[in-house]
Amino acid sequence: MTRARGADRRTSIVRAAFDVIAERGYRGTSLAAVADRVGLTQQGLMHYFPTKEDLLTAVLETRDEWDLLHFGRDSSAMTVNQLADLVDYNATRKGIVQTYTVLAADSVTEDHPARKYFHDRYARVRAGMTEMLERHRDELPPGSTPEQLAPLAIAVLDGLQLQWLLDPEQVDMSAGFRTFLTLLGIKPD
Amino acid sequence: MTRARGADRRTSIVRAAFDVIAERGYRGTSLAAVADRVGLTQQGLMHYFPTKEDLLTAVLETRDEWDLLHFGRDSSAMTVNQLADLVDYNATRKGIVQTYTVLAADSVTEDHPARKYFHDRYARVRAGMTEMLERHRDELPPGSTPEQLAPLAIAVLDGLQLQWLLDPEQVDMSAGFRTFLTLLGIKPD
Repeated sequence: MTRARGADRRTSIVRAAFDVIAERGYRGTSLAAVADRVGLTQQGLMHYFPTKEDLLTAVLETRDEWDLLHFGRDSSAMTVNQLADLVDYNATRKGIVQTYTVLAADSVTEDHPARKYFHDRYARVRAGMTEMLERHRDELPPGSTPEQLAPLAIAVLDGLQLQWLLDPEQVDMSAGFRTFLTLLGIKPD
Repeated sequence: MTRARGADRRTSIVRAAFDVIAERGYRGTSLAAVADRVGLTQQGLMHYFPTKEDLLTAVLETRDEWDLLHFGRDSSAMTVNQLADLVDYNATRKGIVQTYTVLAADSVTEDHPARKYFHDRYARVRAGMTEMLERHRDELPPGSTPEQLAPLAIAVLDGLQLQWLLDPEQVDMSAGFRTFLTLLGIKPD
């Protein structure tokens, strides 16, 4: 198989995985179900993605790329309003938010295959968030710095996702994130 | 076996699980390892806790009880300073924080055995946090309410734990939580 065909195949597997996650959630997503969707044997799929964690990490990487294309050129170029829009969008895709939440938390365990991905992703997202807040430095509460606030902003996003997944009737991610922006003195449009 | 002896046995299994979690982390903790520590066969232990999730949920319930005994009579009676102390304390017990993070996130999946526990725990913790913030109502930023801020405070705690577990050199939970209190206009001692 040529390298280009291999890349095409990987792309279609990841797309199929998005569909299966949306329909069946994290727990219902198996390598077998994704293989079936894309017309491969499970053995054939494991040639590209040896474990469920490998496949789901590829799904999350692809989501990051799409989100950046939609919502900002790169994470440092995303605006506060685009980020608020992204939170609204996430409220419409429970399966992928669930997958993110489960896999990110699972990656903190010893020798987890996705640990490096999440470690590096959080370092990158903190840097991007710091740059975003830097552009609002004059609005931030006196004495607080973008470097201090960036991990808090990310924590709010992750923590609200968890509470929303457990209790969507009681927890509103979009309203919560906007309240947090107000605490920072930033007014979204 | 009498009911009292059964309860004693459960208590010693949970204590042994704390030790194993502290030594080996979430991934290294198995029913077999805990059974071994407490002098039971795995089959014998499964009489009390049929699955790893059941045992770990009991560990987290026990942690909640201990923390409340140490840090406040009940969650609504905990003060902001006691909560900041609890964050400091959590920074010294990585295994249990890791266990909490993994299991809470995992519980958002369909039919997870710990789902009800976490759903109910978050409802209770949000209510307790709302009462705590109520006692600082005069200090809170104009226009914000304890009800709005309670889920954010919990999100900050959970989200900082995740980032700290992935990158303890870069993320300081204690400093982060104190920065959040400053945003709320609350000065811890």
